[in-house]
Amino acid sequence: MKNTFGNSILVTIFGESHGPAIGAVIDGLAAGIPVDIDYIQQQMDKRRPKADGLSTTRIESDRVQFLSGVYNGHTTGTAITLILENSNTRSRDYEKTAGLLRPGHADLTAYAKYGGWQDSRGGGHFSGRITAAVVAVGALCRSILKAKGVCIATHLRSCAGVEDLPFSPQTEELVQQQNRLNEMDFSVISEAAGAAMQIAIRAASAEGDSVGGVLETAITGLDAGLGEPFFDSVESVLSQLLFSIPAVKGVEFGEGFGFAHLRGSAANDAMRMQGEKVVTTTNHNGGINGGITNGMPVILRTAVKPTPSIYKEQQTVDYNKKQDAVLQIQGRHDPCILPRARAVQDAMCAIGLLDLYTQRFGTLWQAEEG
Amino acid sequence: MKNTFGNSILVTIFGESHGPAIGAVIDGLAAGIPVDIDYIQQQMDKRRPKADGLSTTRIESDRVQFLSGVYNGHTTGTAITLILENSNTRSRDYEKTAGLLRPGHADLTAYAKYGGWQDSRGGGHFSGRITAAVVAVGALCRSILKAKGVCIATHLRSCAGVEDLPFSPQTEELVQQQNRLNEMDFSVISEAAGAAMQIAIRAASAEGDSVGGVLETAITGLDAGLGEPFFDSVESVLSQLLFSIPAVKGVEFGEGFGFAHLRGSAANDAMRMQGEKVVTTTNHNGGINGGITNGMPVILRTAVKPTPSIYKEQQTVDYNKKQDAVLQIQGRHDPCILPRARAVQDAMCAIGLLDLYTQRFGTLWQAEEG
Amino acid sequence: MKNTFGNSILVTIFGESHGPAIGAVIDGLAAGIPVDIDYIQQQMDKRRPKADGLSTTRIESDRVQFLSGVYNGHTTGTAITLILENSNTRSRDYEKTAGLLRPGHADLTAYAKYGGWQDSRGGGHFSGRITAAVVAVGALCRSILKAKGVCIATHLRSCAGVEDLPFSPQTEELVQQQNRLNEMDFSVISEAAGAAMQIAIRAASAEGDSVGGVLETAITGLDAGLGEPFFDSVESVLSQLLFSIPAVKGVEFGEGFGFAHLRGSAANDAMRMQGEKVVTTTNHNGGINGGITNGMPVILRTAVKPTPSIYKEQQTVDYNKKQDAVLQIQGRHDPCILPRARAVQDAMCAIGLLDLYTQRFGTLWQAEEG
Amino acid sequence: MKNTFGNSILVTIFGESHGPAIGAVIDGLAAGIPVDIDYIQQQMDKRRPKADGLSTTRIESDRVQFLSGVYNGHTTGTAITLILENSNTRSRDYEKTAGLLRPGHADLTAYAKYGGWQDSRGGGHFSGRITAAVVAVGALCRSILKAKGVCIATHLRSCAGVEDLPFSPQTEELVQQQNRLNEMDFSVISEAAGAAMQIAIRAASAEGDSVGGVLETAITGLDAGLGEPFFDSVESVLSQLLFSIPAVKGVEFGEGFGFAHLRGSAANDAMRMQGEKVVTTTNHNGGINGGITNGMPVILRTAVKPTPSIYKEQQTVDYNKKQDAVLQIQGRHDPCILPRARAVQDAMCAIGLLDLYTQRFGTLWQAEEG
Repeated sequence: MKNTFGNSILVTIFGESHGPAIGAVIDGLAAGIPVDIDYIQQQMDKRRPKADGLSTTRIESDRVQFLSGVYNGHTTGTAITLILENSNTRSRDYEKTAGLLRPGHADLTAYAKYGGWQDSRGGGHFSGRITAAVVAVGALCRSILKAKGVCIATHLRSCAGVEDLPFSPQTEELVQQQNRLNEMDFSVISEAAGAAMQIAIRAASAEGDSVGGVLETAITGLDAGLGEPFFDSVESVLSQLLFSIPAVKGVEFGEGFGFAHLRGSAANDAMRMQGEKVVTTTNHNGGINGGITNGMPVILRTAVKPTPSIYKEQQTVDYNKKQDAVLQIQGRHDPCILPRARAVQDAMCAIGLLDLYTQRFGTLWQAEEG
Repeated sequence: MKNTFGNSILVTIFGESHGPAIGAVIDGLAAGIPVDIDYIQQQMDKRRPKADGLSTTRIESDRVQFLSGVYNGHTTGTAITLILENSNTRSRDYEKTAGLLRPGHADLTAYAKYGGWQDSRGGGHFSGRITAAVVAVGALCRSILKAKGVCIATHLRSCAGVEDLPFSPQTEELVQQQNRLNEMDFSVISEAAGAAMQIAIRAASAEGDSVGGVLETAITGLDAGLGEPFFDSVESVLSQLLFSIPAVKGVEFGEGFGFAHLRGSAANDAMRMQGEKVVTTTNHNGGINGGITNGMPVILRTAVKPTPSIYKEQQTVDYNKKQDAVLQIQGRHDPCILPRARAVQDAMCAIGLLDLYTQRFGTLWQAEEG
Repeated sequence: MKNTFGNSILVTIFGESHGPAIGAVIDGLAAGIPVDIDYIQQQMDKRRPKADGLSTTRIESDRVQFLSGVYNGHTTGTAITLILENSNTRSRDYEKTAGLLRPGHADLTAYAKYGGWQDSRGGGHFSGRITAAVVAVGALCRSILKAKGVCIATHLRSCAGVEDLPFSPQTEELVQQQNRLNEMDFSVISEAAGAAMQIAIRAASAEGDSVGGVLETAITGLDAGLGEPFFDSVESVLSQLLFSIPAVKGVEFGEGFGFAHLRGSAANDAMRMQGEKVVTTTNHNGGINGGITNGMPVILRTAVKPTPSIYKEQQTVDYNKKQDAVLQIQGRHDPCILPRARAVQDAMCAIGLLDLYTQRFGTLWQAEEG
Repeated sequence: MKNTFGNSILVTIFGESHGPAIGAVIDGLAAGIPVDIDYIQQQMDKRRPKADGLSTTRIESDRVQFLSGVYNGHTTGTAITLILENSNTRSRDYEKTAGLLRPGHADLTAYAKYGGWQDSRGGGHFSGRITAAVVAVGALCRSILKAKGVCIATHLRSCAGVEDLPFSPQTEELVQQQNRLNEMDFSVISEAAGAAMQIAIRAASAEGDSVGGVLETAITGLDAGLGEPFFDSVESVLSQLLFSIPAVKGVEFGEGFGFAHLRGSAANDAMRMQGEKVVTTTNHNGGINGGITNGMPVILRTAVKPTPSIYKEQQTVDYNKKQDAVLQIQGRHDPCILPRARAVQDAMCAIGLLDLYTQRFGTLWQAEEG
């Protein structure tokens, strides 16, 4: 449904990078849910560029404004509209290069789809900026899930060729890791790996280049029984959302592509009773079997391609003149998007899971005491 | 939407492995489209188990019957319902082990979701058998796309640790590869790799074990401009469908997880004019930028986990007795699902792409002369 | 969504009058709901033509067969597919008049939409026969609502110019009326009115003509708080469904078109406390304010046009020859559809209300003990 | 889908009467469609209260602001967000009577649904004010349809007991009537009837009372073949939208409830050739057969109940104190909503029809030259 996602909750996003505002409508939240502005801004801040040499120098205040659906600090039960004004726009950077298609970007496809009518300033509707609205919506969803004991956390599993430690296979330790990651700006499990990543990002940046990596998310505290066998499998729902994040080109759950090298006897997760509960002794399936949560932590990873905006000279075409050309990108860009994209990944997971919960337990459930 | 997929075309699948029939409803096809039973059966045959030691010995005739929407060999424009009767069912194989949860399967999650009311015979609604209906629907969609010049083909990029050659970067050669693959039962580019894979599969099978791998699909002849920037990105739409295939645990486009190790300067696809058309000199992005097709071939891969049904003894629990147990699986199972799953992957791609085409060009377009 | 309705439950209908079978898929029912075949057939029987001179002489056995989603007499929680085979088809009746468009029917619009590819035998997908599947699905939904205390009943409020008594304004008496109506084949409150209607129907039939009327439904036992302020208002949801019934050309709630002649002071329903509960002293608004149920009985009416199939000679055109023509309809037809359509109207209400309930309370709620 | 409507175009509305702004998102419009602000405001002006004693004295400037999707005076092809700020709010009028439920309003149902968390100032999300956003969206849709030759016009068929003339059965004359109506503030065919209506409205107003009526719409220039046989019948789609208008309690097409008194031989529309085209000699079916447009004008009517806000004293309850009470409504209210609601009715029709057109002909069709 184009810019709208969901079944029991519906999220619609809108906006262009240099238009008046970006934002989102979220419909299907129960009435009476506390809207904690500080918590929302805290999530927004994770996505905001920092003046640390690792991200763009376009700094937006990103104050979330509610146009509807929130009253006296709580949801009213009607559609919630939130917007973020676009303030720090420098459209001139883009005008200079109009017609020159940026490799790796959506410039060519925007022409193919919109025939030249697109607002291409700052990437328009393809800009990563739109994901700020997703983070705000995700924060609302996340606060509901949090009250039910669901925790979501993402780290840079690899970046610029440097690997972080994996999540712990022990759930208790994993939850501690999650809590630490959710306090960090540059979210890694191993401090040493994080330091090495930052050095590698700065090195690429110094050369006018950019780097990619892998973002890994763990979700704990989920009920077993969420999701559907086919088109609304947990993997289907989350991957639809995760592939909406600009730059994500791969999604895997549990062992993911690692399964290709395993035999069934090694890939299957053995089971045992833990009190009254069935648990698996390993978690190769990443908490999901047959598309449905099994009560173990959901583990997923996305492949994030290097930021396509680089300062190095590139071969391209001038779309207007229909001739080959050379492009030297100006403007302000992130040499690495992963430290900020992790907030978007958290948000997408929160949106997808709240929708699955709401289908199963109803809208009213959201506001029930735990 | 649970068992229903789509926007402009809607596909609903239903059935359990040992129920009277499985099937699907497809709504949104234009009137007057030829329904070529031979072509459909040809696609069905690719998914059917063969008596070759590589797949289950449960052989179904899998004759597609139409209950609605087809008249005089053409679509009528109304909802098409097709069913496949379940004939060769041996439910007793499953009764023996009732309550013993099969590791890697959806037995535990089925209990969590359905509370014991599920029809668990043969995996019930979680059975790979349901995908036979998907293949039939996909064949209908594919025949429409084919008439428009769109070609879809899938090969075993890797299986049991053996790698096949990648697709050719030259589009003309790629189309030839596609045509050859679509004629093959065991679809590989390199015959030698295929032979080695089959040996490896048989070796695992002999040990009562199973293997996984990677299925790679190429789609050529697509128009530029399909898909949407966010929730209906081509990646989002196809991944939702692909993750519906039981056993798929990863999806990637273009370089996919390989992007993690590239710098932007290496990852971006340079552009040049080819006559009036813009093409890219490489195809790291797999034919998709900003969620929208750019006119280059779409390249994607799925990670397929090893069949969870293995004959080796496994540690599990008895769900009814709530105690640890040991399981020795009986019944008929595929030591490797990839040779058959490739037909399902083709079908899912066809369904997703026809939906995107129909949104852009309308229902009537489907039946227009090329 | 063409042939699919719903949000939290999805109903897809399919089939043509003279094809192999008609049927429906219903997705989103909880697992473990008893499937009472007798109750379903009882609802089916209300819609079946009787050999009473008031309806068509095409008698179908209309035995519901389940292809999926039902096991051991209960829902499994997966998509339920039910079919009804078409047995008593006499396509020759229609062949004689091929090309001659039947006034009041969908023959002209079928050509416009499907370009001649439609299966026009017996009205094809436009046939009232398709509503047999709706009744079967409605019976499933209704049995769930019934267990929660919701009662639905419909009577012929007017037919062939004869008026029945209105529903009682007293809820207790209304429930008694509902129970009586649900036991009747020809459902009227006043026996005298019913007798007069039957005389009038037979009179029209004898002249080769047909009659219309108004079907009025009362729904009691509903919770307050169902529905949404705008596009999913209870009126919006139910009217979408009710206008799907062939022959329905008007839908009104409460006073409906009678509101045009009232002043606000007469139209508003005064309120008072009844113990802890707020009730209205009148029910002009038919149990719905602002699109949401208020806890009073929902009262609605549909306008049902006279059956377009009449035996009198009619002016029409020959679509193939593109010339004016005269048509004398053959075949078997109902002189009045209302006695049978009331079962469809009940079913549509049940489907819509179960969807609204499920959105609010979740899928699991359906199977909970009252 | 709660506050979202549509298949190929999606319209999401949001806002509360006294919140910061109301608005809508419309997704699925093609790129390059001219956005004529003057035309939009012209439609908005039809809905705006006038200082004529017939409507509320709350005057809003109702300037439409675009937050996204419009650039250089044309649509960009992405989601369009428009907002209308709420300026002239006097919440105090409502505070005085907090807890006193207004008869005929959604106060009771809002408590039932939202448990007291609703923003009830000015009716909150139930306010007719939200329909201002619908009119703005409808104006966009209408401008696209207009360029294709589709004309929509609505008149007060009856009001306060006074009847206007019906639409002409001659299409040419009907189009002239439509053009005249679209220029009028108080849209009636007969000037004398209009004058009598205004006298009757003022008389009711002087007594602190309000009046209702019937709005009749004609839609000309439609292609045959729009709509679907069942759940997306033209009647289903339009009625879902029309019943979203607060105060609409009935919807009928063609003869509507008048069919109840006709025999088939009088109700069926005879056909004849008009050149190459098939036309009907009467239009009892209101341009729709089997849910699908037949190329004749679509004629529909809605029943609009009298404004529930009246100044006369009313019996009600105090929801907070749980006791019977008497209410004397203050504030600014319309004694008759019909003159303004006609703009909303036009808009709803435009939205529904554009969605049906887009499904059939595709998104790109919208921007094609006629």
